[in-house]
This record gives sequence, C-alpha cells and structure tokens, in this order.
Amino acid sequence: MAIMGATGAVGNEFLRILEQRKFPLASLKLLASARSAGKTLKFRGEDLKVEELTEKSFKGIDLVLGSAGGSIARKFNPVAVAAGAVVVCNTSAFRQDPQVPLVVPEVNPEDIAWHKGIIANPNCSTIIMNVPIWPLHKVNPIRRLVVSTYQSVSGAGAQAMAELEQQCRDWSAGKAITKSVMQHQALFNVFSHTSAVADNGYNEEEIKMVNETRKIFHCPDIRVTATCVRVPVLRAHTESINIEFTNPMTEAQVTQVLSKAPGVRIVDDRRKNYFPMPIEAADGDDVLVGRIRQDVTLDGRGIDLFVSGDQIRKGAALNAVQIAERL
Amino acid sequence: MAIMGATGAVGNEFLRILEQRKFPLASLKLLASARSAGKTLKFRGEDLKVEELTEKSFKGIDLVLGSAGGSIARKFNPVAVAAGAVVVCNTSAFRQDPQVPLVVPEVNPEDIAWHKGIIANPNCSTIIMNVPIWPLHKVNPIRRLVVSTYQSVSGAGAQAMAELEQQCRDWSAGKAITKSVMQHQALFNVFSHTSAVADNGYNEEEIKMVNETRKIFHCPDIRVTATCVRVPVLRAHTESINIEFTNPMTEAQVTQVLSKAPGVRIVDDRRKNYFPMPIEAADGDDVLVGRIRQDVTLDGRGIDLFVSGDQIRKGAALNAVQIAERL
Repeated sequence: MAIMGATGAVGNEFLRILEQRKFPLASLKLLASARSAGKTLKFRGEDLKVEELTEKSFKGIDLVLGSAGGSIARKFNPVAVAAGAVVVCNTSAFRQDPQVPLVVPEVNPEDIAWHKGIIANPNCSTIIMNVPIWPLHKVNPIRRLVVSTYQSVSGAGAQAMAELEQQCRDWSAGKAITKSVMQHQALFNVFSHTSAVADNGYNEEEIKMVNETRKIFHCPDIRVTATCVRVPVLRAHTESINIEFTNPMTEAQVTQVLSKAPGVRIVDDRRKNYFPMPIEAADGDDVLVGRIRQDVTLDGRGIDLFVSGDQIRKGAALNAVQIAERL
Repeated sequence: MAIMGATGAVGNEFLRILEQRKFPLASLKLLASARSAGKTLKFRGEDLKVEELTEKSFKGIDLVLGSAGGSIARKFNPVAVAAGAVVVCNTSAFRQDPQVPLVVPEVNPEDIAWHKGIIANPNCSTIIMNVPIWPLHKVNPIRRLVVSTYQSVSGAGAQAMAELEQQCRDWSAGKAITKSVMQHQALFNVFSHTSAVADNGYNEEEIKMVNETRKIFHCPDIRVTATCVRVPVLRAHTESINIEFTNPMTEAQVTQVLSKAPGVRIVDDRRKNYFPMPIEAADGDDVLVGRIRQDVTLDGRGIDLFVSGDQIRKGAALNAVQIAERL
C-alpha cells in the first residue's frame, strides 16, 4: 500500500486512521515531493521514511491512497493504475470523469464495483452534507437544498491551520496579523471560500457540492444552491442545510430516520441549547446532526438541519479508508 | 437627552456616534445601574459622570436612547414617557407591541410618525438583512427567505467580546480555555445562537428575524426561515441570504437596485475573490453586500446574497441614532 502526499494534513490523518482501524496491510510506502523526501513519520510504532514520488514508485503496490493535489493526481494516478494498483483519489481531478466512481460508503458503496483503477473521494463539504441527507432522500426524495457552510481552515491544508494558529498568537502578543497561505485574515473573520468564481457567480467549492451530490445520489435533478464560507475554526466543517422534500415530513420522522443512519450522531438538546459544534465533531468519525426542525415556510415539506463533521477525517481521509476497506 | 445603559457595548457606541454625527443636543445624561454609577465616560472632550438610573432620572429629558436590557426597558420606558420623553428602545421588550413602531430608517421611516412615546429598534440580524433586501422587495415582492447567520460575539455584549479575546490569549499561552459569559467556547468554534429554543425548534433570535421583518415590511405573508449561528468574530454580523422572488430577476437587475440603495455598499469582485467580510464591515455604517448571483435552482426567481454589517453600529446604536435624527 502507498500513500501519495503523505506529509500533508490528510496524509497524516491516513496514517492515524490506518493504525486506529487496524487496516490489513503488508507494507506501507510513504510518497511525497522531493522537498519532503527523507522525513520520517510514525506508523504502528515504527519510523517510516518518506520517499520521493516518481514514476517508479508503484512497483508491487496494490492500493494507493492519494491526496497530493489535482495536478499530481492527473500525472501519477494513471501510472499507478498501469502498475496494477487501485487508487482512491482524494483530489477533484477525476470526480466528474464518467469512468470513475465517486463514492461515499454510507450512500453508494455499490459504485465501487465498477471502478477501472481509480475511485474518487468526494469534496469534504459534499461528504458531510451527503451522509445525513441521503437516508432522508431515500424515504422522501429531496427536491431542493439551500446550504450555507462554516468551513474550517483545515480544508486549505496543514499550512492554513498553522497560519490561523500563528495569527492567534500574534494578535495575543499585540503584533500585526500577517497572512501568506490564505488570501484573507482568518482570525476573528469569515470570508467567502476563495476557490475561483465561475461566470454564474458560484465558486468551485459550491459547484462541487451541486455536481458531486448529483453524481453520488444518481439524481441529476436534485437542485442545490450553496454558499461556501470559511470561518476561524481549525478542523471540522459545519453546515446549515435547508431541505425541501417532495412530500410532507415531520421533524419526528426525520429524527427517527437519522437515529438509525450510519455515520450520523444526533446532537439535538433544545433545553440545554446543545447542538453540533466543530470542536466536538473534530477527531470524530460521525457527522453530528442537530437543530432538526420543521421549516415554517414550506407547508410541511421542509426541514432545517445544522450539521458538523471532521473535514480531515470523514471529509477526506476516513472516507477514503472506508472505500479502501470495502475494496 | 439621556442614554439608558451607557456603559455597555451599545451604550459606548451611542457616545461615539452622537459625537461623529454632531447630533444636536443641549445636555447628555448617562444612566446605568448602581454598580456603574460614578464611572466617567468621554464625550466631546469632556468627562461625563454616569448616574444611577432611578424613577427620577428623566426630569427635563426630551429623548432617551435605551439599551439596558428588556426588564429595565419594561420598567423605565413608561416612566420616561410619563416624564415627557420619547424613548428609542434597543431591547426586544416592545418590538411586537402594536402600539410601538419598529423602525429601520432605510425601510419604514414613515412609521416614526405614529409613535406614542416609544419607538423600537429592531434586532441586529434583522436590521442587517432588511437594509439590502427591502429595495429589492419594493420592485419584486419577496416570497421566501432562507437565511443563515454568522454572528459576532458582540451581540452577546462587551463581556462576551472580552471573553473571546481572553480565550485567544489563553490559547496562545498554552492555558486551558475558560468560559463564563458565553455558554460555549467561542474561539475556534461555531455554535447555534443560545437564545431559548421554542416548541417549534426555532430559537428566539430566529423568531425575531421572522416576526420583525414582517412588521417592518408591513408584509405579514413574507416567509422566512432562519438559522442563527455564533462565530468567533468580535463585531459585525455576516449573513448568507437566499431570496425567492415573485417574478424573475437577473443578478444585473439586483446589482442595479442595490447600487442605489441607502445604507448599502456593494463589495463584489469575483476575479479578486473579494466579498463582504466582518473585519471590513466593523466600525462602518454601511451593510456590505456581495456574492450577488442568480440562484441556479429557482428558474430565474432566486438570488443569493452574502452580507456583512456592524452589529453594534447599524445593528444597534447607529440605527437608533438615525431614528432620533428623524425625530
């Protein structure tokens, strides 16, 4: 087995999850850019040396967990497949390729079967939304979603997390706040997700939530409008989701379905004002779901949810490892 | 003139705004609880002493700006009115009283005329939403709003702002994060607004956004579903607003209307990924509006907006002073 992009935030999480879940593997190869080659990372009590990713890296490898960026994936995924490996790819490069399944194991595990060497792992915000809404969609088809996200800086990588932490320390020391990784100041601020904005005004992150949900659900008609926003949180994304169903559905029915849904944990105590929070979703496997309530504007066909899930785990590394386990 | 609740976050802002706008006044009396009496606050270069609020405080007072909490308002507003003053009340105590106008000067200034001694200042999130959507509603009636907020801790008062700052310093010093003002940790977290949750699952803040918008717009039919969320921002609230209009409307038409709207400043540079941010809305008078785009799910009748406005200024003190100016 190999990890491509082992030194990033998701790469590090792959190591933790493979160890926690006792993933069966005979050997583990850590691949990264020449800059990171030679570093060592701990795995099952041993120091593993990071090797430089080259076209020869995949000899004898059965399975690759990839999280090294889109251009690396476009270049090296075919090389790995040609060498006989299956790649679970965490970048956006192949997600819309009709030859490549896009999989959330709680939603469409059956799509794993038709892979041709590459299986794509969806966008983090998409996964965290799809896990709780899929079981509802199965019993009452969703017509329209209006989602606003509260995304942690971990989605921008380990360096962005370090930058937010440094901004916190600098502010506390009375120093000027600087930024080089993220376009805008993260501390004490929120800003629209800085992926490129398309002609229709939606940014790439928002377009992913639309197109990936349609592909994963095999439902090209589902209507999604998303507003993706970065907040000063280190890890775990939170989302405010408004659902319009085809048929009426009570909040009791929704709670009933979600209480049995895989990958979901209900956190919804109205009296204690205790609902999903990213500091509690962080480092966990479940998507926390709360604020479950009937939308007062949709004549019984609407539900509002507030959800939070660890972006690095379920939004990235855990989802990929779950795919690998099923493989 | 008197300020009731002079030592709070909004009370302090009243002083700044009266000075900045050269509000015409012969004398200014600062009123607060016995605990704060004796403190001094600067106004126009002079030290003004804070006096204890009592039933005798309003002799000779024409105008009261009040921001001392609902129970104080219920007790002292009628006393001030009986003494001949007009009260612009910043609490929620009288907002739904049919005898009391609820006013955003950019929306319904004509309602000031029928006051009977008290004029209510709306909820901060409501004001910041209403300023940009009212001019759109006038040309194309809004049917339904789905709004998710990113509210700063200033809405919970000066002590909450101090608590977030202290959490930042404690984290930076490697100390445990403590909390006593806010129910949940604010630093590196987001949480559902902690106002009481009603039987229908909406919290008080969300219900205010529904009911107050209806009263201010004189439009009891407008449908609003809101999810109110606290984020680790010091001041200025941000909101993701999805609008369903009665008739089709392009983003160009929306931008055209908003470019002439009072109290609105468009910040919407797609190429630079530069949109409204609370650190830029803070200390300003305008509601910043951006991410103006046609909702892809509503067949031309939907628009998404992302807005940010200073909660203490336009969301509270400035709006009240604007009402006082018209009085």
